[in-house]
Amino acid sequence: MTYTAPLADIRFTLREVAGLGRVTNLPGYEHATEDTVDAILEEAAKFARAGIAPLNREGDRVGARLENGVVRTAPGFAAAYKEFVNAGWNSLPFDPEFGGQGMPWLLATTVQEMWQAGSLSFGLVMLLTQGAIDAIYHHGSAEQKATFLPRMISGEWTGTMNLTEPHAGSDLSQLKTRAVKNGDHYLITGQKIFITYGEHDMAENIVHLVLARTPDAEPGVRGISLFVVPKFLVKADGKLGHRNDLRCVSLEHKLGIHATPTCVMSYGDDGGATGYLIGEEGRGLSYMFTMMNNARLLVGIQGVAIAERAYQQAADFARARVQSKADGSADPKPVAIVQHPDVRRSLMTMRAKVEAMRALGYYVAAGIDSALKLPDREAAQRTQERVDLLIPIMKAWSTDLGNEIASIGLQIHGGMGFIEEAGAAQHLRDARILPIYEGTNGIQARDLVGRKLSKDGGEAMRHLIDDMWTLTDEMETCANEHIVAIRNGMMAAANVLGSATEWMANAAKADLQSALAGSMPFLKLAGAAIGGWLLAKGALAAHGKLLAGDGDLGFLEAKIITARFYMDVILPPELARLGPLKDAGHTVFALTENRF
Amino acid sequence: MTYTAPLADIRFTLREVAGLGRVTNLPGYEHATEDTVDAILEEAAKFARAGIAPLNREGDRVGARLENGVVRTAPGFAAAYKEFVNAGWNSLPFDPEFGGQGMPWLLATTVQEMWQAGSLSFGLVMLLTQGAIDAIYHHGSAEQKATFLPRMISGEWTGTMNLTEPHAGSDLSQLKTRAVKNGDHYLITGQKIFITYGEHDMAENIVHLVLARTPDAEPGVRGISLFVVPKFLVKADGKLGHRNDLRCVSLEHKLGIHATPTCVMSYGDDGGATGYLIGEEGRGLSYMFTMMNNARLLVGIQGVAIAERAYQQAADFARARVQSKADGSADPKPVAIVQHPDVRRSLMTMRAKVEAMRALGYYVAAGIDSALKLPDREAAQRTQERVDLLIPIMKAWSTDLGNEIASIGLQIHGGMGFIEEAGAAQHLRDARILPIYEGTNGIQARDLVGRKLSKDGGEAMRHLIDDMWTLTDEMETCANEHIVAIRNGMMAAANVLGSATEWMANAAKADLQSALAGSMPFLKLAGAAIGGWLLAKGALAAHGKLLAGDGDLGFLEAKIITARFYMDVILPPELARLGPLKDAGHTVFALTENRF
Repeated sequence: MTYTAPLADIRFTLREVAGLGRVTNLPGYEHATEDTVDAILEEAAKFARAGIAPLNREGDRVGARLENGVVRTAPGFAAAYKEFVNAGWNSLPFDPEFGGQGMPWLLATTVQEMWQAGSLSFGLVMLLTQGAIDAIYHHGSAEQKATFLPRMISGEWTGTMNLTEPHAGSDLSQLKTRAVKNGDHYLITGQKIFITYGEHDMAENIVHLVLARTPDAEPGVRGISLFVVPKFLVKADGKLGHRNDLRCVSLEHKLGIHATPTCVMSYGDDGGATGYLIGEEGRGLSYMFTMMNNARLLVGIQGVAIAERAYQQAADFARARVQSKADGSADPKPVAIVQHPDVRRSLMTMRAKVEAMRALGYYVAAGIDSALKLPDREAAQRTQERVDLLIPIMKAWSTDLGNEIASIGLQIHGGMGFIEEAGAAQHLRDARILPIYEGTNGIQARDLVGRKLSKDGGEAMRHLIDDMWTLTDEMETCANEHIVAIRNGMMAAANVLGSATEWMANAAKADLQSALAGSMPFLKLAGAAIGGWLLAKGALAAHGKLLAGDGDLGFLEAKIITARFYMDVILPPELARLGPLKDAGHTVFALTENRF
Repeated sequence: MTYTAPLADIRFTLREVAGLGRVTNLPGYEHATEDTVDAILEEAAKFARAGIAPLNREGDRVGARLENGVVRTAPGFAAAYKEFVNAGWNSLPFDPEFGGQGMPWLLATTVQEMWQAGSLSFGLVMLLTQGAIDAIYHHGSAEQKATFLPRMISGEWTGTMNLTEPHAGSDLSQLKTRAVKNGDHYLITGQKIFITYGEHDMAENIVHLVLARTPDAEPGVRGISLFVVPKFLVKADGKLGHRNDLRCVSLEHKLGIHATPTCVMSYGDDGGATGYLIGEEGRGLSYMFTMMNNARLLVGIQGVAIAERAYQQAADFARARVQSKADGSADPKPVAIVQHPDVRRSLMTMRAKVEAMRALGYYVAAGIDSALKLPDREAAQRTQERVDLLIPIMKAWSTDLGNEIASIGLQIHGGMGFIEEAGAAQHLRDARILPIYEGTNGIQARDLVGRKLSKDGGEAMRHLIDDMWTLTDEMETCANEHIVAIRNGMMAAANVLGSATEWMANAAKADLQSALAGSMPFLKLAGAAIGGWLLAKGALAAHGKLLAGDGDLGFLEAKIITARFYMDVILPPELARLGPLKDAGHTVFALTENRF
């Protein structure tokens, strides 16, 4: 039940699929040499395994607890977080001006996979802090940056994002929390729910970012502003001052991630919490969008992480559990269940999907770096468009798969899977939040079709499909039977994704509602096709290295076989969503509401 | 968060799909008149709603508890069970000779759907008791029947099935529990795990059926015998005597069905529990197989039940929750989320799958009645063969869908879905046991390909596919656009299932292990195709009734639209498992075990 970072596949995917070499050559990343990156990966793997993973099971059992207004995190969490901060892990991708290490987002994303696989509950504090850092970094004043960023980047202070209210979940236009100007600050009053790490005992201060409405603001989302509301006010000398007028009034009783305190936060019970406006009034939501790509990518990475952990546990179990003789064998001796065909197919399914998800996640992360740093701003812009297109796919496709894979992992355990002590069930419970938060997966599908595809009429997707065809050209001369089969799968994927894109781009113009009825089948098809493309890219690279005798031959062969399995077994049903995405509109709205 | 039995769909499916009229005309079912059946359905719906469903949430929260060797069931369970027994519900399908009502299994299965939807945790006691009744009824001695059946059929005494041991889950050949002859009985010693309702406070006696090995029995499954081991010995006058030497030593801490006591049972700590041999020594496993069809059907029905309950809850939530404006509308006013395209598609998906699962479940139950009672024994035999073929499909396909649908239901709740108080998460947790117990779904797929298809070379499936084509002939003259689309879907399903069957029947002969690598894709394809056939049958009947103006027009239209949605949106990816089921064997065994 532990976790070992799959360094071989991580390194291979970084180099051969995400293009680590191109990223570290970008201006500003000169210090991210191959040796540095390797050393960081090794150390992160050690900390994820020894420092974080052991907390996961007990964290689930004990959970976070609210006692007299104070949140006690699960056993070992506070100590592990201190160690995490002391080792400098939190500062990896941030601006050196404020104490960051200025490492590529690609590396930071890779390392995040390890933290999240160690424990989603523990890893969440970093995700939220990163979001808050991004918001202040991009939109805060010089004073706000100087006050908050160094301590947040070091991880000494953590951050939160306060969006949701009971009546305003996905629809932030309905927010009621109020912010009234009072000299150099605002007084914030209102209640926020689902605030991840809204209160805890792991850091000396918590920096809340709060969306609220000013008194005479226009209705809807344009009336919403963003405020920084620290738990303890910060004095001019940087020391902590008064406790702010905010508190955690309760913790949610959740299906999973029990060790993450999910708080109901009350602001201003004693007259108003002191908050500082970020940027301009009325632009709160647009500031939130700035950090959305990073946050959604990281949630997608959580999907990879939980899937990897579930896979490792299931594989260990399947090698150890002995039941029944081998099919088609005359020997009556029971064998390890890894030898049974459906268990083996299940493990291959987990493995192939994990590798595809990882490939897409790292590819997107590399895109974020390129979009930031490419000197050719036009190329940077095109990369940004591809990132914007892929973000909703990565978030939704990968988190749905995270759940599917956690469930397969549980199933491989048989009856033991249903018993909490075995730990397989926890992965399923923990994974179940991923398709919901940071925008439900339905909202991701809406974003993909209603915004991304509508904005450019499918142009960014067309460029991507061109790249898929380029790869099939590169594979054409290879006679290896696996590569031939993989290329055939790729061609089917490129064809079908092309048809789906043209149909959907037109449909979104002609009848948005009807097009959106097929938005989720479209997203799933796109995720599966693009994931397949990146696996094919890896397989071709592995084949080249095999021919050159360069690397661990067993590992390289496994990359090729896994990609072939993906094309043969995983891809066909996904590509068959082409009919459904077109036809859903015929019947989805045909029943009246009260028929359901 | 309550449950209302969907009587309109239940009645329609009974009559138009499962052929209730043909079943009640079978010799021996004369008393099951249409009026009687209707009255039973009405009363069962009331009891499920008012007597069982309200226990479900609190049962999950409190769970069953072991205190000083006594299991306290969850609040209200004991009282509800007493009411259930007093109303005579338990005796519905059993032989009147022992106090049963001799009603068709079709009706009993339908009513079981309601109990299980009310609460899986509560409903499980009936499933296990029914299995124990079946075993004693078919294989017990006259004395055993007279001693145990009347009280078990009334429900005053409950039953259990003791198969699993820690090292012997799916592989019963490894059982170690011992039974040593001692005069007119045997002394049983050993430990059994995962014993559902192994101990509880709802009945005055518990009749355990225990698989054990006699001292000089041959190794493997042929050395296993079946014993009836009552908690309290029964005296000659039928009164309860001594407490037997058996006890519940612990309860499992499970992901779901918290209110079901899942016991570790210890037999013979004080020298040996008194057990009575059922039938002959060495035939225990074959006796178990007798009742397996009924038990697996009922687990499939649990899949229908939890899916229906999740669907009802999600539909209620989607009608009540107001978030965001309607897509493509100029009106900025937020609307109920049931109006959002992806939520609507999700609800249609739940609905269409629930109706297909219910149709298959009732169809199989009707087959069990026909196989039992048809005077034409050759026709009865053919029906039995179809039942045998469909049982693993119903069990695995329906329980996988139960999980999928519970997960969609949770997703529709957004953030609230992850909070336990909302109740959506419980359905997912409860549903997760269904693909595991009564033979994991992987074992069902193995049974389908390795036994059922291998035994007759695919003949029973061919007959079924012939019936699919017969229906497409019947639909041919209908010009209604929905019926035309449904017929097209049906033809694709019949074609693909035909190809899959021929391929798989040959492959199972040529290379069993490789064929089994595709057994699960084959099972899923078959379930989806056959479910679609039965929906099409219902749609054609609904169309006929619409033309005749016979019935609730809105309901009949909805049946047709839902079937069309199934063909357009659900079926295509499932039929696309044809490639995967053939190709899985290429790569499933290509990696060495230690690569995973």
